Amino acid sequence: MLATIWVINPIITKEFEEGTCREVDRYKTPELDIKVKTIEKGPASIECRYDESWAVPWVTTTIKNLEKDASAFVINCFGDPGVESAREITRVPVVGAGSSSMLLASLLGHRFTVVTVLKRLEPLFQEIAWRYGIITKLASVRAAEIPVLDLDKDKNRLIQRIVEESVLAIKNDSAHVIVLGCTGMAGLASEVSNQLQEFGYEVPVIDPLYAAIQIAFMLVKMEISHSPMTYPFPPEKLRIF
Amino acid sequence: MLATIWVINPIITKEFEEGTCREVDRYKTPELDIKVKTIEKGPASIECRYDESWAVPWVTTTIKNLEKDASAFVINCFGDPGVESAREITRVPVVGAGSSSMLLASLLGHRFTVVTVLKRLEPLFQEIAWRYGIITKLASVRAAEIPVLDLDKDKNRLIQRIVEESVLAIKNDSAHVIVLGCTGMAGLASEVSNQLQEFGYEVPVIDPLYAAIQIAFMLVKMEISHSPMTYPFPPEKLRIF
Amino acid sequence: MLATIWVINPIITKEFEEGTCREVDRYKTPELDIKVKTIEKGPASIECRYDESWAVPWVTTTIKNLEKDASAFVINCFGDPGVESAREITRVPVVGAGSSSMLLASLLGHRFTVVTVLKRLEPLFQEIAWRYGIITKLASVRAAEIPVLDLDKDKNRLIQRIVEESVLAIKNDSAHVIVLGCTGMAGLASEVSNQLQEFGYEVPVIDPLYAAIQIAFMLVKMEISHSPMTYPFPPEKLRIF
Amino acid sequence: MLATIWVINPIITKEFEEGTCREVDRYKTPELDIKVKTIEKGPASIECRYDESWAVPWVTTTIKNLEKDASAFVINCFGDPGVESAREITRVPVVGAGSSSMLLASLLGHRFTVVTVLKRLEPLFQEIAWRYGIITKLASVRAAEIPVLDLDKDKNRLIQRIVEESVLAIKNDSAHVIVLGCTGMAGLASEVSNQLQEFGYEVPVIDPLYAAIQIAFMLVKMEISHSPMTYPFPPEKLRIF
Amino acid sequence: MLATIWVINPIITKEFEEGTCREVDRYKTPELDIKVKTIEKGPASIECRYDESWAVPWVTTTIKNLEKDASAFVINCFGDPGVESAREITRVPVVGAGSSSMLLASLLGHRFTVVTVLKRLEPLFQEIAWRYGIITKLASVRAAEIPVLDLDKDKNRLIQRIVEESVLAIKNDSAHVIVLGCTGMAGLASEVSNQLQEFGYEVPVIDPLYAAIQIAFMLVKMEISHSPMTYPFPPEKLRIF
Amino acid sequence: MLATIWVINPIITKEFEEGTCREVDRYKTPELDIKVKTIEKGPASIECRYDESWAVPWVTTTIKNLEKDASAFVINCFGDPGVESAREITRVPVVGAGSSSMLLASLLGHRFTVVTVLKRLEPLFQEIAWRYGIITKLASVRAAEIPVLDLDKDKNRLIQRIVEESVLAIKNDSAHVIVLGCTGMAGLASEVSNQLQEFGYEVPVIDPLYAAIQIAFMLVKMEISHSPMTYPFPPEKLRIF
Repeated sequence: MLATIWVINPIITKEFEEGTCREVDRYKTPELDIKVKTIEKGPASIECRYDESWAVPWVTTTIKNLEKDASAFVINCFGDPGVESAREITRVPVVGAGSSSMLLASLLGHRFTVVTVLKRLEPLFQEIAWRYGIITKLASVRAAEIPVLDLDKDKNRLIQRIVEESVLAIKNDSAHVIVLGCTGMAGLASEVSNQLQEFGYEVPVIDPLYAAIQIAFMLVKMEISHSPMTYPFPPEKLRIF
Repeated sequence: MLATIWVINPIITKEFEEGTCREVDRYKTPELDIKVKTIEKGPASIECRYDESWAVPWVTTTIKNLEKDASAFVINCFGDPGVESAREITRVPVVGAGSSSMLLASLLGHRFTVVTVLKRLEPLFQEIAWRYGIITKLASVRAAEIPVLDLDKDKNRLIQRIVEESVLAIKNDSAHVIVLGCTGMAGLASEVSNQLQEFGYEVPVIDPLYAAIQIAFMLVKMEISHSPMTYPFPPEKLRIF
Repeated sequence: MLATIWVINPIITKEFEEGTCREVDRYKTPELDIKVKTIEKGPASIECRYDESWAVPWVTTTIKNLEKDASAFVINCFGDPGVESAREITRVPVVGAGSSSMLLASLLGHRFTVVTVLKRLEPLFQEIAWRYGIITKLASVRAAEIPVLDLDKDKNRLIQRIVEESVLAIKNDSAHVIVLGCTGMAGLASEVSNQLQEFGYEVPVIDPLYAAIQIAFMLVKMEISHSPMTYPFPPEKLRIF
Repeated sequence: MLATIWVINPIITKEFEEGTCREVDRYKTPELDIKVKTIEKGPASIECRYDESWAVPWVTTTIKNLEKDASAFVINCFGDPGVESAREITRVPVVGAGSSSMLLASLLGHRFTVVTVLKRLEPLFQEIAWRYGIITKLASVRAAEIPVLDLDKDKNRLIQRIVEESVLAIKNDSAHVIVLGCTGMAGLASEVSNQLQEFGYEVPVIDPLYAAIQIAFMLVKMEISHSPMTYPFPPEKLRIF
Repeated sequence: MLATIWVINPIITKEFEEGTCREVDRYKTPELDIKVKTIEKGPASIECRYDESWAVPWVTTTIKNLEKDASAFVINCFGDPGVESAREITRVPVVGAGSSSMLLASLLGHRFTVVTVLKRLEPLFQEIAWRYGIITKLASVRAAEIPVLDLDKDKNRLIQRIVEESVLAIKNDSAHVIVLGCTGMAGLASEVSNQLQEFGYEVPVIDPLYAAIQIAFMLVKMEISHSPMTYPFPPEKLRIF
Repeated sequence: MLATIWVINPIITKEFEEGTCREVDRYKTPELDIKVKTIEKGPASIECRYDESWAVPWVTTTIKNLEKDASAFVINCFGDPGVESAREITRVPVVGAGSSSMLLASLLGHRFTVVTVLKRLEPLFQEIAWRYGIITKLASVRAAEIPVLDLDKDKNRLIQRIVEESVLAIKNDSAHVIVLGCTGMAGLASEVSNQLQEFGYEVPVIDPLYAAIQIAFMLVKMEISHSPMTYPFPPEKLRIF
């Protein structure tokens, strides 16, 4: 076995973990093992800054605990909660689903649109895009307006809404690539792509969890990680939890 | 009394609270009461993303608890920890020391330099500058390279280092305004300004806590606050702490 | 009395002065006196660069004459006529209504729209936004298409047009904050805000004159002013008027 | 005769007019007549915003008076004083020396440096570069630190200083093109270019007056002018001078 | 004769050469001779990167062969094929139709739209705009969706489509200047301008070939060319064709 | 076998092919076969736009010929010659070494520096960085000033020069990640990294060929490719070679 990647679910919802496990099973190979860990405390889902702020401490704690058995970590949320903090406490690669998939989208076409759950996440995703340098490639952030915890309730309706917003993105925002903007949409990329093709639009559709796992595996193989100059270890000091 | 502003210290260090109290006493007027509250749990100081992530949940909790007695909140740290999250849970104005003082600096001259404690904070401060739109006005981030908890150990040395870096900022980075980049430097602006003048450099020097308090008071008087469209209330959901 | 702020009306129309006086009376406090001065020569209103160029010399002259009795100056026009010039001839703070209110808007939300009198002013306002660093926060400039000198003719119609354009800004331009883009709209912020709320849009609405007075007062209290490095005194030379 | 271009000197110094006349005589052809007009009132030289603001009204008046006999106007100052205002009152092309020469520099190489008289002009020139879209091409603004009215006192010293700053621009700022940043440097481009070549630097050196005249002539031949949508005529109103 | 400008047609279609010859005849003067040269091998038209890549080698070869008899070269295609390469092999000015006309458009108004043949060219034209610094002035790229080789088939229809897209650019994209985005549209500027005026839109319409010829002639008269620092000669080495 | 990636050497130098074969042998796995193909005609090395323009046609031809046997293509040159053109003629993923490695660098740290062979390549690399959206992450382009064909002559000297420039990049340009800016430097990343660590600088050093192969393999596994909307097939037309 070459690598063990831990996928960290930054929300406490167990049903979400089951879906993640099903999904990552498809990506396992003889070279790559993928394990899933759900944080023990935190929010049921992440749909705003406030949710995010309650997830991050537990993401970092979880990563610290698993560090010795991990080749790399993937944070399984498009908002990249805890990526910046976690990179400060480990030299093992930590990769976020949002940043990974948006960088990949930049490579593949002129501009990309993120189709996410709620429009209110737009400023947060723009901030991630800016942090990693690709804000000018982000054509728009569009939303299905379906809360995270309702994503699994009606898969057909979810796919329909993603396709509708993708078509608008292509027609109105000059998007040439679609990024699924929530890891709760994992596994839907090919179906969305197919339906778009039926409408006459041939565009790459990126699954953010899959992209993040592949980027993480790539870092393991290349034996590189995030820069210690950007993410030096935190100074020792009292921290009461 | 027109307004009660709560200054939230996002670190658990009690000595810091004393300094803050001394400082804000100078800014009180018959119209404006200022109270200081230190978070009960969290880090001893904030010098990286990891520290920040442990402070934010307690900042939001503290603000929620005080909401009924507050005209506005000031988060007393240049890194603006919790500003974005807290704005989602209250309609009372929440103002950060970093964003406030950098916006004020933008108004006063061509470009400004932030002189902070540690160079490692540069990407974080650039991110705040970008979030509030003023990244092109930020000439540079320079650092005294003195940890937060050592700031009070030798005030003369601290001032000297701030002045040295300010001179370099003016000469090499085309800075026309200096922003003190740590609220642990509160109260030093006029001394830094005086010493710079002795070196022949006449530039505004901005105290970030003072700037944030004044901006917060201004919002109270104008009866406006952060936008509910950028900061809608978080959806109700399970959050385990 | 802590401070005397002079509001400089950069147009010769006397009716406008009366409105300004009524407006600033509401902002006076025991700490803050506000006086209004109208330039003696210049244009009847400012609606283009040409108007602006005829106002600026008289703005600077007026400010120079009042300098000894002033704690700060506010230039009562969204186009900031004479702010840059006047800052070169006095060390007393000079604050423009456009720059002040746009910086404040940047602090309060994701992006803001300026709703002004005439669309033709768009490039000028974008230039001010760029000068102060916040061009990326400016979602759009929209216009009521009512000339300055007609603003007082039908207040209801004016408010209705501002509200209409604000709704379009929120829906089409992703504006989260509205800035009234003409000081002839002073005093309308709360009415506009109320009507927007009736339409279901809860956004801060910023009154530019009020914002500028508050920023100016803040500078007085903080004992800082614009940077002498950006605005050195003009060299002595012959200037014939 | 195809065209008559009027060069407007926006300063009252008569010696400057003589130099301009000598210079433009070299550019006349059977197709192109060039005439020089000095404003009657205004500053002795333009070295700051305040100077500029006293020149602009007379520039516009002068242009209005000459409009009927002009194929195009060139404003003979790198700060483009009055270009924006004048374009609002005439459909005859009005071209500034700063914008013209910086746009030409953008066409010729990777990045350009403006070598001007006084460093204090940097924000103004950056603003012009931004207005015409080419701010990313502006490597730096450097200054000989010789006042405008002293430029003719010692031509050798002036050229030496321009060459010194040009060498620094090439070595430190990655400048690939040099723009002479004051029309008082008219006629020096080839001498500066020659001396730079002796130092081993082969770069285009652009004379701003010459560039502006050629651009203006080009507009005449192409029968196009500035856009009436950007520069609509000012509304009629009272303007007292 | 002051100058001989060679217009290089970077496509092998002979009918296009005839049109070019007719067009440039109108621009000849006693001072300026203009000659047209069509590349011997390459694509029938340039409508994508692939076409461009097959044109560029022959553009450079053609220019190298004509260098001794040329005062300047104009590359007669809006995509500027070979401009960057050719500038490396000659010190004679080489000017592209796209970059020249877009820089001119920047000088004339707030923002400009390029109306070209096919929408697929948008990223390429944005790249040219970025290279020459003016990407922020480019309001949009719109297309008639008529292939290059069909442009001459129905002139009225072509003009109608250009006018339609120009009207949309003015109304929806805030375009204040129109640039014809294909040199196959040479000669249509005044007709497009007239029809726009009938619709009530008064905007400059720029013919890219004419603009490029005028810029090239201007460089000849000013005795400057592209910077040898940006375009140093290629090192000697084996190149097999 | 899951995938066959073809590495296209866009230069005719056979010694370079041998080095590439040695290098890629290390990256082969049971899942991934990697083959190398050198273009038959073209330049001996690519060090400028002119070289590039002679390589691109043969890169596209070679790719077209191999299309049926390829899972993906990697263009083995940091200047990405032919990436844009080749993507128009095949739906098989085409990945460039420059864009891939710069995007990866963006993911890993605050800003990165490209250390390449010749400084003259700076504008070209900045253009690639802009095209893929990451220009703001590019701290600087620095050069060993060793021609491509001399890279193998003295490996120690080459490594020393890369390390020297990397240290300057870290100290002066705020680089936190180093990208080797020439595929002729393939295989040196770990040695450069080690030597930097001896100097006290711990930064990721990215090998561009390795990065491109990994990105290409990732696209194969994810079954996505470049967007047909950005890269539609070229229209059929006559093209004479």
